[in-house]
Amino acid sequence: MAAKLDGTGVTYQQLSDLEHDFDDVETEIIRQQVRLTEPLYEKRRELVSQIPGFWNLVIEQAPSDIDEWIQPSDSAVLLSSLTSLSVSHFEVEGGAQGDPRSVAIRWEFAENDFFEDRVLEKKFWYRHSKNGSSGLVSEPVNIKWKEGKDLTEGLLSLAKAVWDEDQAQGTIQTKKKRKDLTATQKALEEKIDSIGLGGVSFFAWFGFRGDPVTAEESRTAVQEQKDRRHRRKNGEDVESPAREEEEEDEEEDVDLEIFPYGAQVAMAIADDLWPGAIKYFTQAQEEDEMSDVDFESNQSSGSSLADEGLSDDEAERPSKKRKA
Amino acid sequence: MAAKLDGTGVTYQQLSDLEHDFDDVETEIIRQQVRLTEPLYEKRRELVSQIPGFWNLVIEQAPSDIDEWIQPSDSAVLLSSLTSLSVSHFEVEGGAQGDPRSVAIRWEFAENDFFEDRVLEKKFWYRHSKNGSSGLVSEPVNIKWKEGKDLTEGLLSLAKAVWDEDQAQGTIQTKKKRKDLTATQKALEEKIDSIGLGGVSFFAWFGFRGDPVTAEESRTAVQEQKDRRHRRKNGEDVESPAREEEEEDEEEDVDLEIFPYGAQVAMAIADDLWPGAIKYFTQAQEEDEMSDVDFESNQSSGSSLADEGLSDDEAERPSKKRKA
Repeated sequence: MAAKLDGTGVTYQQLSDLEHDFDDVETEIIRQQVRLTEPLYEKRRELVSQIPGFWNLVIEQAPSDIDEWIQPSDSAVLLSSLTSLSVSHFEVEGGAQGDPRSVAIRWEFAENDFFEDRVLEKKFWYRHSKNGSSGLVSEPVNIKWKEGKDLTEGLLSLAKAVWDEDQAQGTIQTKKKRKDLTATQKALEEKIDSIGLGGVSFFAWFGFRGDPVTAEESRTAVQEQKDRRHRRKNGEDVESPAREEEEEDEEEDVDLEIFPYGAQVAMAIADDLWPGAIKYFTQAQEEDEMSDVDFESNQSSGSSLADEGLSDDEAERPSKKRKA
Repeated sequence: MAAKLDGTGVTYQQLSDLEHDFDDVETEIIRQQVRLTEPLYEKRRELVSQIPGFWNLVIEQAPSDIDEWIQPSDSAVLLSSLTSLSVSHFEVEGGAQGDPRSVAIRWEFAENDFFEDRVLEKKFWYRHSKNGSSGLVSEPVNIKWKEGKDLTEGLLSLAKAVWDEDQAQGTIQTKKKRKDLTATQKALEEKIDSIGLGGVSFFAWFGFRGDPVTAEESRTAVQEQKDRRHRRKNGEDVESPAREEEEEDEEEDVDLEIFPYGAQVAMAIADDLWPGAIKYFTQAQEEDEMSDVDFESNQSSGSSLADEGLSDDEAERPSKKRKA
């Protein structure tokens, strides 16, 4: 029998199954939201493409979950050269039945002094592991830095080289046994150590990999989990496989993830910056107006988007940010 | 002609209309979400009603948006006497076509030393003002404190008395001209001043009113706004009414709102604490286990809800909280 909570007839399994039921509904809701907002995002793309500097101003107002990772040197590139940002739910486009939480984040740049790329796109797949957890996983995207301009100081290209080695060996695990480290892996570990916390470039985000769950493992995990839930609903006493105890980090284990908060940053972009872009742009305009000598005349051109008085959830965020 | 952004063919009006189109879709999505999750919340209610202390543990783990308002003395009441919490989207229940963002938050209590009430329910209506803003408004709910046990020190009952006076006079504005203050209003102002920032009881939240928008004003505002948008889509050059400049707070103006962040707290309960209740409960259980001497044996009873390794947006919040 499944373990019951002390003094009750309820099992953790029942609570867990119910949470999965909620999760299924949430997935369906996100799928519908993607479908219903698609034409509006297309219309927004058309409108904002006519506004020079739109995305630069949006980035300038990025919420703290994103902004905290942008170093002054990153900011210089983003504010001067970013020409477009877009988020697509690529696993459900065109009516496909993939996971609506999977997102591709595409950055477009003008000619600039830092790198050759005009487009940098990073894909995140929403995957489920055997032990019941779920989240975004990705793979490193390299950047063709110009001579002496690598803002990640070699970190990103090393992470990509380690990924390529791992691909050749058929592994996606970022945690390695120290005794098994290859020369490239050792070089990456030293690079990570030399940079230290808080100092890494935002562009290292392109190197994020996430937890090692393959598409195949994820499909199997989802199917098995659904089967078990279904059988329990029919009264069978089916236990989920015991969650593997997470191994204690041993001294010999080395984690070669270069941007551990990569998934959170991706979610902040997809769920906040992207849907709120017009709001952030308007905020930036208002701040410009506020600091403008010609305040009165600008004021009379009247942004009807200003949020004063009553305000909704969206509009609250900036004031919270100011409070912090 | 509507004002264009400098150097572009785009008007603020176009951006604003598009934001309203997004908002309409979002409203529809929330409506569907409420409908689809209703049976799941009912099932959850049945399950958790069998777990003594469920809601006390959830409150103990409340996210900081809520927790920061709970004083130690409030906490004593909530942790010992709260028996149930529930959120309903009362304007769309039973297929009604009201606003799905309107919520009623219902607290149930066991017999306790502080007040006579077994149920405290506060309703929040999502309303739109003439100037294009929107948000939650409410009305004060009184609490029958036992002798000498009023945690708000008279603040809540004065706020209710002022509301009753306002109702009799047909106003819902919390901002008053100093010269027009009644004796009750003066008493409330003095009480607000005497308590000061940061020291107010969480129970003062029941006195929140929000911005003065009536149901009638809201209906008219929504209709007029939709009409204008529709006409603009058909090519007419219809401007929205100029947003009234917010009056500078004059020295004679007194704001008698006793819990200015009431709407934000309501949203944090409805959008985070309520949907995440099982997650917060599980966290509390895990913390209990962690601090338990008998750690190993509890561990083997295996909560399969533990989030380790991969984690989703929901699961991230607690770790962010710990980071802060």
